[in-house]
Amino acid sequence: MSEDLLKLHRDAIDQIDVDILHLLNQRAQHARDIGEIKGGGIIYRPEREAQVLRRIKALNPGPLPGESVARLFREIMSECLALEKPLSIAYLGPEGSFTQLATLKHFGHAARTVACASIDEAFRLVESRQLDYVVAPVENSTEGAVGRTLDLMVSTPLKICGEVVLRIHHHLLRKTPAMEGIRRVYAHAQALAQCHEWLNKNLPAHVERISVASNAEAARLAAEDANCAAIAGQAAAERYSLAKLAENIEDEPNNTTRFLVLGHQEVGQTAQDKTSIIVSAPNRPGAVHSLLEPLAANGVSMTKFESRPSRAGLWDYVFFIDMEGHHSSDNIAQALKGLGERTSFVKVLGAYPQAVL
Amino acid sequence: MSEDLLKLHRDAIDQIDVDILHLLNQRAQHARDIGEIKGGGIIYRPEREAQVLRRIKALNPGPLPGESVARLFREIMSECLALEKPLSIAYLGPEGSFTQLATLKHFGHAARTVACASIDEAFRLVESRQLDYVVAPVENSTEGAVGRTLDLMVSTPLKICGEVVLRIHHHLLRKTPAMEGIRRVYAHAQALAQCHEWLNKNLPAHVERISVASNAEAARLAAEDANCAAIAGQAAAERYSLAKLAENIEDEPNNTTRFLVLGHQEVGQTAQDKTSIIVSAPNRPGAVHSLLEPLAANGVSMTKFESRPSRAGLWDYVFFIDMEGHHSSDNIAQALKGLGERTSFVKVLGAYPQAVL
Repeated sequence: MSEDLLKLHRDAIDQIDVDILHLLNQRAQHARDIGEIKGGGIIYRPEREAQVLRRIKALNPGPLPGESVARLFREIMSECLALEKPLSIAYLGPEGSFTQLATLKHFGHAARTVACASIDEAFRLVESRQLDYVVAPVENSTEGAVGRTLDLMVSTPLKICGEVVLRIHHHLLRKTPAMEGIRRVYAHAQALAQCHEWLNKNLPAHVERISVASNAEAARLAAEDANCAAIAGQAAAERYSLAKLAENIEDEPNNTTRFLVLGHQEVGQTAQDKTSIIVSAPNRPGAVHSLLEPLAANGVSMTKFESRPSRAGLWDYVFFIDMEGHHSSDNIAQALKGLGERTSFVKVLGAYPQAVL
Repeated sequence: MSEDLLKLHRDAIDQIDVDILHLLNQRAQHARDIGEIKGGGIIYRPEREAQVLRRIKALNPGPLPGESVARLFREIMSECLALEKPLSIAYLGPEGSFTQLATLKHFGHAARTVACASIDEAFRLVESRQLDYVVAPVENSTEGAVGRTLDLMVSTPLKICGEVVLRIHHHLLRKTPAMEGIRRVYAHAQALAQCHEWLNKNLPAHVERISVASNAEAARLAAEDANCAAIAGQAAAERYSLAKLAENIEDEPNNTTRFLVLGHQEVGQTAQDKTSIIVSAPNRPGAVHSLLEPLAANGVSMTKFESRPSRAGLWDYVFFIDMEGHHSSDNIAQALKGLGERTSFVKVLGAYPQAVL
């Protein structure tokens, strides 16, 4: 009886698989036709991929979660693209890092990914067109690489053409699966801060908290000494085969990290875009307030405003500003014009679809 | 005009995507129904997955290559399975190794994979049911880990439930993309042997060939010294950001490496199976010939016959034999009966579908 029922379901799956197979090939044929119409031009269109994924998530009836179907469609687009020419992506290694996860999440597994030892090298490989795109962390609370990405963006000819957001969970990891006898906890200082409350409640006061260069480094240290624990993510737990003593111990549940995708192309407008710019500002009272006036006047929302000391020495500070919308839209174009009248340096880093997955 | 044509193709893709989306969810619902009928039993069925993939490849009309559609269906099955409960897989690390590639190829990216420092540890995690399956290299010409896997199979209670075959390409890798000035080439001894002819033809005679523990180690060394090159695969090239001076330099084009998947379950019969066994044999003339007689008499084809000195000391040698077919089929059952009458130790390691992808 239940064998009959199983067979019914399996037969139904077999029929569904044939239908999916034919649809996948029809899709690939259309993608190929599009490639021919374009005649060897750029085939990767971030704006189009974002539209496809947003639509799929909006239409998804379940039971597969939205993230699952988006992941599958990412892979489908990745295979269709690779039929023309596989994309090559430089990312800040090592393998097993969050940046690799972000790269695969954004480009799918048919892309060719290259782990680079530094952000500089990753940029260089794409600037010299040896590889197609670069993925670099830009707001990454626990890998300590943000500053360098920002500095490189001042001078790179590359354009931002996408962003990737990963939700970051911290776990308490140890070689042996027991809470007893922990003498030290290693983590990046940011991760220690982010798990402060949890550590206060769950570990004895005598346990030392030691900040190290990265959470991956913390995991490595914990793998070498059974008296120590580390705060780190899933990838590091797997990489160093550590037991998870406690999951998701971050005090703030919406802990995310953000990556930028850069390449040689301008990206078209979608329903939800961001525009990123760098502007210089002199170090004098009221300078920032005056600088931001054109944004407010044109109703432009900022999603990020970050200052950094200028390395070039020409200005006192540079500001990284993310705005909602595409720079080809009227209000942002007007705001940029106003900014240009107030400061000697405005660089549009790119306009790109907001992260979907 | 070409814009109109592009729009036609994009509209067609949008409609196809909606159809695929609904089919994926119908598929997931059937998979979920099957899970409920089974009531919490084993949900991963290697025999069923092999059948699905073989059928998809056989029916595939293109233009997507068979490997692409098989890869996509692997991911679809992986997501459908994860809807019930994600599988956890132990593999011989480090990340970036061929064994990780084999693991992802076999289980898809919705599975949880754990890099282990040794094959022993990977087996232990599955034997103690902390993880579900283990993937270990068994005929791996360049990573030097085969012997340990074979030794562990003598005593493990785990059953082989699948195999993965990777085609291995060797590339000549170097820090700088030029053939001039190479003083040394590092590689595993097997890789040096496999590329012998190519090296003779393409490198000056004075270039030293140095064998090291693994090709990954060779790549690491080449990344540190610009005067050196390494022979290694794609993963190592990416991991150490090395330039490819020459691709596919192996003298024999069908260079493959093989991995076994082990777990706690018996796998049902498919149209193309293998059965793996270990038998003991005394060290005396004619012993092997006599041992193999029941296989020949029952028309059983061997695909592998490998001897190893016995570590247990009870026997002189043990033999690892792979046969075509499932041990529940008549001819193999008869052959096993005959073997049992000729030797004191016959262990059936498992019957499993031949590798599809």
